Amino acid sequence: MNFPSKLIEDAVTEISRLPGIGKKTALRLALHLLKQHEANTEALALAITRMRSEIQYCKTCHNISDAEECSICLSHRRDGSLLCVVEDIRDVLAIENTNQYQGKYHVLGGVISPIQGIGPEELKIESLLARVEAAAQTEPIKEVILALSATMEGDTTSFYLAKKLKEKGIQVSSIARGIPVGGELEFTDEVTLGRSIMTRINYATE
Amino acid sequence: MNFPSKLIEDAVTEISRLPGIGKKTALRLALHLLKQHEANTEALALAITRMRSEIQYCKTCHNISDAEECSICLSHRRDGSLLCVVEDIRDVLAIENTNQYQGKYHVLGGVISPIQGIGPEELKIESLLARVEAAAQTEPIKEVILALSATMEGDTTSFYLAKKLKEKGIQVSSIARGIPVGGELEFTDEVTLGRSIMTRINYATE
Repeated sequence: MNFPSKLIEDAVTEISRLPGIGKKTALRLALHLLKQHEANTEALALAITRMRSEIQYCKTCHNISDAEECSICLSHRRDGSLLCVVEDIRDVLAIENTNQYQGKYHVLGGVISPIQGIGPEELKIESLLARVEAAAQTEPIKEVILALSATMEGDTTSFYLAKKLKEKGIQVSSIARGIPVGGELEFTDEVTLGRSIMTRINYATE
Repeated sequence: MNFPSKLIEDAVTEISRLPGIGKKTALRLALHLLKQHEANTEALALAITRMRSEIQYCKTCHNISDAEECSICLSHRRDGSLLCVVEDIRDVLAIENTNQYQGKYHVLGGVISPIQGIGPEELKIESLLARVEAAAQTEPIKEVILALSATMEGDTTSFYLAKKLKEKGIQVSSIARGIPVGGELEFTDEVTLGRSIMTRINYATE
């Protein structure tokens, strides 16, 4: 594409570096910004720059945070004896949005993947084990819920963590795998359906 | 969505103001920026801020430009006797990418649309007529090509412009409407197919 202006060309190049945004979409976004007030573009630029330079990672759970320790870790209304282990920050947001969980989190930063060269050392696993041990002195962690992806890498990581945590006498659970709410039996794959029968739960009558 | 950080919340809010980008995509983009080097975010912020504050509109054709007059208007290799009238900047880019046009442009900034309250005064029509008149003294414009959308508003604008330009003795043409290259007859709508028969052209044998 030949641009009549170096300024717009630079903007399009930078915007199209974002994932899932091609040159055409980037141009559409750039022209949109040109039509809006200059203040809007400034607000956008400031928000992303500030986010990138000022954001911190919670020293306890490694979630993103505005301070040294995140609001969930600092909260006295959350159950400190319950820990949910997730892959990344998006998973924390997803679980928080369900309003079903009142415990705390631990963000691993990924899963074990030998193909991508990610071993246990690259993840926040050492920090998780240290956290569990440290908590034993004050507010012991009773249960660790593993909420990792249902992929081979996720399962490998869950298995590794469960082994390490059980050695320390911690109860370990995993989020349920099964048919999604609203899903139909006939369209569910055999592995999921098979697992959902194996791990059936007692029917709640009240 | 509840965000654990005000910084990321602000960034997501600003990013999701862009057209076609919802909260989920905005969050994905924000987390992508967090994973990248800080320099990438700064380059993006600088590029959009500079574009918005420094870009100019060519005083002759109203295309975007880095200077008072755009590179197309200033070029001596372009045919100044041929003028292509388009709706907006994207149309200039689209036509430039064909490498088939060597004349100059005039960007209207929209089309006449009584429903949206856009009359001829809101567009660069007065400037087009003045430009044609001024050119008559130096390098006369021989032909004006109307390259507006094939919608009711586009056709209305074309009709209005053709009338005004013919009063000044200028030859006016319109880009061809017909079956797109690679298109199949049976899937073409009747209006287009009908027009393509009416406006048939002599078959070129060489």
